[in-house]
Amino acid sequence: MKIHVGPVGAPELEEAVVAAGGELSSLREASALVWYGAGPERFGEFHHSGIEWVQLPAAGIEPWLEAGALGGDAVFTSAAGAYAETVAEHALALVLAGARQLHTDARASSWQRPEGIRTVFGATVGIIGAGGIGRSLMRLLEPFGVRVLAVNRSGRQVPGAQRTIRADDAEGVGELLGSCDHVVIAAPATASTDKLIGAAELERMQSHAWLVNIARGSLVDTDALITALAEGWIAGAALDVTDPEPLPDGHPLFGEPRALISPHSANPQHLLLPALARRVRTNVARCLAGEPLEGVVDLSAGY
Amino acid sequence: MKIHVGPVGAPELEEAVVAAGGELSSLREASALVWYGAGPERFGEFHHSGIEWVQLPAAGIEPWLEAGALGGDAVFTSAAGAYAETVAEHALALVLAGARQLHTDARASSWQRPEGIRTVFGATVGIIGAGGIGRSLMRLLEPFGVRVLAVNRSGRQVPGAQRTIRADDAEGVGELLGSCDHVVIAAPATASTDKLIGAAELERMQSHAWLVNIARGSLVDTDALITALAEGWIAGAALDVTDPEPLPDGHPLFGEPRALISPHSANPQHLLLPALARRVRTNVARCLAGEPLEGVVDLSAGY
Repeated sequence: MKIHVGPVGAPELEEAVVAAGGELSSLREASALVWYGAGPERFGEFHHSGIEWVQLPAAGIEPWLEAGALGGDAVFTSAAGAYAETVAEHALALVLAGARQLHTDARASSWQRPEGIRTVFGATVGIIGAGGIGRSLMRLLEPFGVRVLAVNRSGRQVPGAQRTIRADDAEGVGELLGSCDHVVIAAPATASTDKLIGAAELERMQSHAWLVNIARGSLVDTDALITALAEGWIAGAALDVTDPEPLPDGHPLFGEPRALISPHSANPQHLLLPALARRVRTNVARCLAGEPLEGVVDLSAGY
Repeated sequence: MKIHVGPVGAPELEEAVVAAGGELSSLREASALVWYGAGPERFGEFHHSGIEWVQLPAAGIEPWLEAGALGGDAVFTSAAGAYAETVAEHALALVLAGARQLHTDARASSWQRPEGIRTVFGATVGIIGAGGIGRSLMRLLEPFGVRVLAVNRSGRQVPGAQRTIRADDAEGVGELLGSCDHVVIAAPATASTDKLIGAAELERMQSHAWLVNIARGSLVDTDALITALAEGWIAGAALDVTDPEPLPDGHPLFGEPRALISPHSANPQHLLLPALARRVRTNVARCLAGEPLEGVVDLSAGY
């Protein structure tokens, strides 16, 4: 299978093509195109009738749809979900750091085992917002045999979750929070998710539970969280996002022994290309094996 | 299936029996025995001919063999591997903390993203000593699509590892160290593993790589490690075990920005019972489903 990477070459992507068994070629001879380094506006110059499959570099393809770049007989795949993995990894890192009290270890200057070390094996994990990041996190948690309780907008059952609650079912969400050992926020920031986790929600959580936020700072009421941590309503909070963000120097969360702040580092710029390379490698391998591709764009649905 | 938990009852174990679909019963009526709270010396009083399966609470069963307690027609299962899981979890927590630079975040008092954040997806992970802990860690790493390079005594291929090197093949081990992004030590402390990782080995590692030790402190040459960290030969070390242990106050590793010390907290006492409860639950469920049990004792092999 002859594959062209362009209009701008990227060694990582070319290596991924070759590692999966694909053959790099000129654009003219290619039957597949891994588009990289330019937006949709130049796509017309490159797309030709011999191209059967196009891998796009973005997770959201609205600009491509708006530019009318997608169409014809080719199959298009996006990077949807590919960038979620690294955020999910960060979420798992924070969950485990909390369970294992690594934030306390990191600050210690003497040999003393922190109290409250827990195992994630068999734990109950609440995932608020079960989109791409939440689903990736569930895959990473699978070997731990956890019980996942999910919250999403529709209330439609999330595959792999033991129970799924509608976000607007306040009583259901409260009950869920009360039975979780770890609560991970992975929902988009919208008007209806603003301060989704406030004092009432933090009060429902168990005193050994951790709150992990890798979504947006606005989903948590910071003042309520500061109180919850100071008074020990919950065991800790690991936050990749905050409100305000960046947290100003001297902010109480920096001095809070129960808090671990990672400064929006779940998905840094330099990890985007490796994530895309993994998607390319997977899809080239699947293409060669005749298996369904990941992230196939449904033009009628618009994503 | 009627199961007795004893000679000392434990609610966690009884709950595990019931959760898996078993029925708690008196010893006399039981066809299976979950032995808890006493050593082998009292076993003879409890074992009877109606008992078809005995779950032992220990991972190592030498005392049981020495006492001649195991025999007859019953199947015996040990807890072998069950306690490895929580150590493997701690190892993964340390690997992820290193990759995500959480030790730096925990110490920060201002909003600044640490350099060198990496992803474990697609990384190369060296596992030195691929016994129960190493294998458990491999299961936890599976969703990350890592490449595992294993080192063991026999050089026999470790299932799931891309390559397995004999521990006494110094050149092979050096090459392996040079290609890893993360090196996890999970080998037993023996005369031949003493200071297994010294200056020469640390020099072979990549400058972005992390060393994780959840085995025993004696496997790493502490002085060499201090130099390697101070001079940036490697990106960091996460140590659950140290030499000396405990680390005395004021030890250079406590002040080292590239080090994360967890004070032998991979497998604290209070996590042993939950781990045994998971084994009981799994084995009761398997027994009822007619599936092979975990940790079946091979009396002729002695473990």
